[in-house]
Amino acid sequence: MNERVGSEAFGAVVDEGIGEEIHALASRLYPICRSITGDGVRETLAILAEHIALERHEVPSGTSVFDWTTPQEWTIRDAYIADGSGRRIVDFRKHNLHVLNYSQPIRARMALGELEKHIHTLPEQPERIPYRTSYYAGNWGFCMAHKAFAAMEDGEYEVVIDAEHRDGSLTYGEYRHAGATDETFLLSAHICHPSLANDNCSGLALLTLLARNLARRVTRCSYRFLFAPGTVGSLAWLSRNEDHVAEIKHGLVVSCVGDGGGPTYKRSRQGNAFIDRAMAHIVEHFGEGATIVDFSPSGYDERQFCSPGFNLPVGLLQRSAFGTFPEYHTSADNLDFIRPEHLGTSYRIIMEAIDIVEGDWTTVSTNPKGEPQLGRRGLYAALGGDKAAAQAAMAMLWVLNLADGHHSLLAMAERSGLRFADLARAADLLYAHGLLREADRS
Amino acid sequence: MNERVGSEAFGAVVDEGIGEEIHALASRLYPICRSITGDGVRETLAILAEHIALERHEVPSGTSVFDWTTPQEWTIRDAYIADGSGRRIVDFRKHNLHVLNYSQPIRARMALGELEKHIHTLPEQPERIPYRTSYYAGNWGFCMAHKAFAAMEDGEYEVVIDAEHRDGSLTYGEYRHAGATDETFLLSAHICHPSLANDNCSGLALLTLLARNLARRVTRCSYRFLFAPGTVGSLAWLSRNEDHVAEIKHGLVVSCVGDGGGPTYKRSRQGNAFIDRAMAHIVEHFGEGATIVDFSPSGYDERQFCSPGFNLPVGLLQRSAFGTFPEYHTSADNLDFIRPEHLGTSYRIIMEAIDIVEGDWTTVSTNPKGEPQLGRRGLYAALGGDKAAAQAAMAMLWVLNLADGHHSLLAMAERSGLRFADLARAADLLYAHGLLREADRS
Amino acid sequence: MNERVGSEAFGAVVDEGIGEEIHALASRLYPICRSITGDGVRETLAILAEHIALERHEVPSGTSVFDWTTPQEWTIRDAYIADGSGRRIVDFRKHNLHVLNYSQPIRARMALGELEKHIHTLPEQPERIPYRTSYYAGNWGFCMAHKAFAAMEDGEYEVVIDAEHRDGSLTYGEYRHAGATDETFLLSAHICHPSLANDNCSGLALLTLLARNLARRVTRCSYRFLFAPGTVGSLAWLSRNEDHVAEIKHGLVVSCVGDGGGPTYKRSRQGNAFIDRAMAHIVEHFGEGATIVDFSPSGYDERQFCSPGFNLPVGLLQRSAFGTFPEYHTSADNLDFIRPEHLGTSYRIIMEAIDIVEGDWTTVSTNPKGEPQLGRRGLYAALGGDKAAAQAAMAMLWVLNLADGHHSLLAMAERSGLRFADLARAADLLYAHGLLREADRS
Repeated sequence: MNERVGSEAFGAVVDEGIGEEIHALASRLYPICRSITGDGVRETLAILAEHIALERHEVPSGTSVFDWTTPQEWTIRDAYIADGSGRRIVDFRKHNLHVLNYSQPIRARMALGELEKHIHTLPEQPERIPYRTSYYAGNWGFCMAHKAFAAMEDGEYEVVIDAEHRDGSLTYGEYRHAGATDETFLLSAHICHPSLANDNCSGLALLTLLARNLARRVTRCSYRFLFAPGTVGSLAWLSRNEDHVAEIKHGLVVSCVGDGGGPTYKRSRQGNAFIDRAMAHIVEHFGEGATIVDFSPSGYDERQFCSPGFNLPVGLLQRSAFGTFPEYHTSADNLDFIRPEHLGTSYRIIMEAIDIVEGDWTTVSTNPKGEPQLGRRGLYAALGGDKAAAQAAMAMLWVLNLADGHHSLLAMAERSGLRFADLARAADLLYAHGLLREADRS
Repeated sequence: MNERVGSEAFGAVVDEGIGEEIHALASRLYPICRSITGDGVRETLAILAEHIALERHEVPSGTSVFDWTTPQEWTIRDAYIADGSGRRIVDFRKHNLHVLNYSQPIRARMALGELEKHIHTLPEQPERIPYRTSYYAGNWGFCMAHKAFAAMEDGEYEVVIDAEHRDGSLTYGEYRHAGATDETFLLSAHICHPSLANDNCSGLALLTLLARNLARRVTRCSYRFLFAPGTVGSLAWLSRNEDHVAEIKHGLVVSCVGDGGGPTYKRSRQGNAFIDRAMAHIVEHFGEGATIVDFSPSGYDERQFCSPGFNLPVGLLQRSAFGTFPEYHTSADNLDFIRPEHLGTSYRIIMEAIDIVEGDWTTVSTNPKGEPQLGRRGLYAALGGDKAAAQAAMAMLWVLNLADGHHSLLAMAERSGLRFADLARAADLLYAHGLLREADRS
Repeated sequence: MNERVGSEAFGAVVDEGIGEEIHALASRLYPICRSITGDGVRETLAILAEHIALERHEVPSGTSVFDWTTPQEWTIRDAYIADGSGRRIVDFRKHNLHVLNYSQPIRARMALGELEKHIHTLPEQPERIPYRTSYYAGNWGFCMAHKAFAAMEDGEYEVVIDAEHRDGSLTYGEYRHAGATDETFLLSAHICHPSLANDNCSGLALLTLLARNLARRVTRCSYRFLFAPGTVGSLAWLSRNEDHVAEIKHGLVVSCVGDGGGPTYKRSRQGNAFIDRAMAHIVEHFGEGATIVDFSPSGYDERQFCSPGFNLPVGLLQRSAFGTFPEYHTSADNLDFIRPEHLGTSYRIIMEAIDIVEGDWTTVSTNPKGEPQLGRRGLYAALGGDKAAAQAAMAMLWVLNLADGHHSLLAMAERSGLRFADLARAADLLYAHGLLREADRS
């Protein structure tokens, strides 16, 4: 209805069945044994690249990345503990969580008393295999269900981790969607976890399909989708993109978006950036379970994006917050734990944030003295009896009342308690009737 | 006790019996069939003019008023629905709510099936006649008790609305009280509703008698009392007074001030104007039932005063908020629904707001280092045992402590939790003893 | 670990047994009959001077002190009411609360009907003697248990108050601890109350021993400890130190610090001074019972320090707030009412405030882009499993994240919810590893 770029697509993308589609993609990613480096990441990116024009970046091992150095590649071929009879008690081929991720190789026979120093279990969740990593300390180890561990008899075991660390590269993927401006929205999901469905097959699959759908849309902002290993991966990306970091005006780290909890939004370090306000608006209208938490330097890659030298407006979206659900970092974080309906809801939350970023504008009333007469323009529903018409009328009155050049639509939503989408519709209608103009951007 | 204009009258006006007086005046206004224009408004103003030197203004029909045009005058002589025997089933002469206000004329015979499209009832309050208007859509209609409507038998009815719309004028009344300065306090009540006692015979009567009493008082501020039809009436007044709008530093729209609910204060669009702070102070000390709500563009003429092109510091005072009580806009909003004691209380609330506007000043201690010795000046009660003396002492200590030229008495009231009136008395006493001077106004 | 003065002593002073030591000192002060002037104050100061290099100041009677004049000295030798048989019904030698403090002398025989006008009791606490004063009104009187008063028979009594008022001086004591800077922390306790253990033998004894212990510490700030009679005593000190008042950047009035209530911190008039923020931090981490109240001009000498002409950042620390506990200003405020453990806790609260004032600094990360790699520096505990290690890691992450030159450690504590002491330890560790530098103070 008007010429502002971005707004015409508002609500235009219908995403029926998106939850099922995300779940199906996550299911393909789930079995792959990813780590901070190596072929698991490349295999994952290759699947994502079936949907979007993904660029793959390789950062050579040993590259300085701010205070860090990119690690060697880790290749894991097999890992097991076998008993005296040769039976595999623990078998990497059955579940890739069984091996301490990024473990050193070993091939030895040892007594249980020695071996058990290298075995990680969850005594309080005895059926589940824990997820453990040792990226920087040079350890080897296994993870297993406590119940199976308790059943191990004394004696000697064959212990094999057929892995190697060698120079290669750290791999990450990026997809860019160019908008009318350089104002950039960063969406990021970590790609370094092996078979954990919620953390983060859910985030990888959701962002990939959202990127694919966004490609059909003409946008005001530009978008960058990042699929990188945690910490050193996002730092590598930051170090290679320092010249463009200042263009990032909005950002979300996305993880654990497939369960039924939350949604949980963690504010950026700035605390009241536009993305924080937009997400607060969405989350506050979500209903029961929705939670907003303040920034803290514990979490995912928002820790790097929000480090003091960058201080980007990047928050974290999750359903249940990491560490708060019992399936977290265990073999119970599997494909049954994530559900299409929750993935679909998470998708729509992010799309709503994009709608706000794209659709926010600052209005000026062309009739600022008193209310304009809506009735003679047919803007009040004829009989006015129904509730939807009353809400639409209230949205128009709010927009007109705050159309002073100092309130964007999001600010109006915050003040009125109405939904951004309703105000945006009202503003488009009023604009079409000549009752609003857009404020100067200066 | 000092020379500041306005303060000497503080508490000087005793208003015993004011509630009964307001009720009596409201009772004279109640039977008149007012509308947005026409003789009902003039008849009402004539009664108000018995108490105050009211100016009557006539704005010709068809005058452009910002985005609006003043409507034609509506004259209603009779209206009824008669059954086959000629018996009046609905009779305007029995209650002026029976006719859709500003209805088009009609004179016809028609079957009930046709007629009922033009009949408005309240199925959930079957004994009550609703109040309905149709100012700008050119409809005709009747309002009646649902019970009576349900008893109507099929058949043909005689339907008469003996009304006409013709060029004339829109009428409003204004009373001005000149104070020592141009700083202006606007008090406004809508005059367009027919026989509804709370909404707004109560507001019209209260403001009229308050204006009469204020005439006896020497004030610092100037006061303008406006009695105008809703929306287009206040817009007409604004359009004729644009040069003086900037002088309006405080304002209250007054409606529904005769029932026992609330009080309910709705903030101005500015949200923290002096009137908002003063009313918040009064309402917070009122006790149970008192409510403060934020501005919204739904309500009475504060919608116009607070439109973005004016953005005046005008709030809305009510007892029960409009739309929240079952009698609202029905025939149950009658003279039994409003009570002298509630009208008296509402009067005193507004008078207290005037006292604060008149009596606020910014003090500077003449002994800012340490507390001055109040005892040797006889400012502590001799034995100090009683509670009133202790409160008076605390008021003095607060005034002295905050007498730094940056805290007006209202700011002191907000910080201390004490009543403005107690602090004002303490300040007058300290001023009389040379312990305070007035801050420079620059 | 770094060169900032003050920080090296952090946590260095271990104060085992300090509660018992304070109680023992308070016990020596308790029996003395202090008043606003006179030998009781001097005797008290002499005992305090056994622990610290106390300066005694004498301000001649009749000296103008801002709006006040220092009063004459009061000497009390004996006071009693004797019955017809010569038996002392009320005897000053048994309890110094029996005489109205600063009472005029009297030597007379009078009937009970006349005498009882001069007797103060607490009918609701019939076993307890109230504490009453009459500094400026020239009264005489006795205080006694209501039960004993009720048992007095009609008849004539011998009434003796062997006291005199004569020119002399008002006495106060001060102890100064010089730090590296003129930035001054004022700690003040009133010295004018007779045998009341909590109010304020507790404060006098606590501050004296804290001053003694602080003497061993190299500090950044300078400290002034003031032991002065209420109101006119603190005003005398202010009048003699006006040139240095601007150096007072932090202050606490200390009273009633021996009971088990609270702690209660009353903010300075500024409301958000550094001391207010530091005390809020301490009190909020204290646990149940801890309370923060806003400033009001009712209380102890913070009334004078916070008068508008000074407006110093001086708060009030108490356990139970004055006036809220039944023992307040009665003979039940005795040495059983105050306990070593509570005195020790109060001591540590103040020492923690000093630690914050001394130890706060503003950090700048030397690796602001991303998190530095703590692991390779051994800054993450090897196994990381225990809770203390996790907390220490969180403290490091918070310090690094907020090390932008705009957040002092106290600001970090406020934002993170972590304890100042934990953040300070983390900052020292990071500084030692070259990961932080100190922000420019300009």
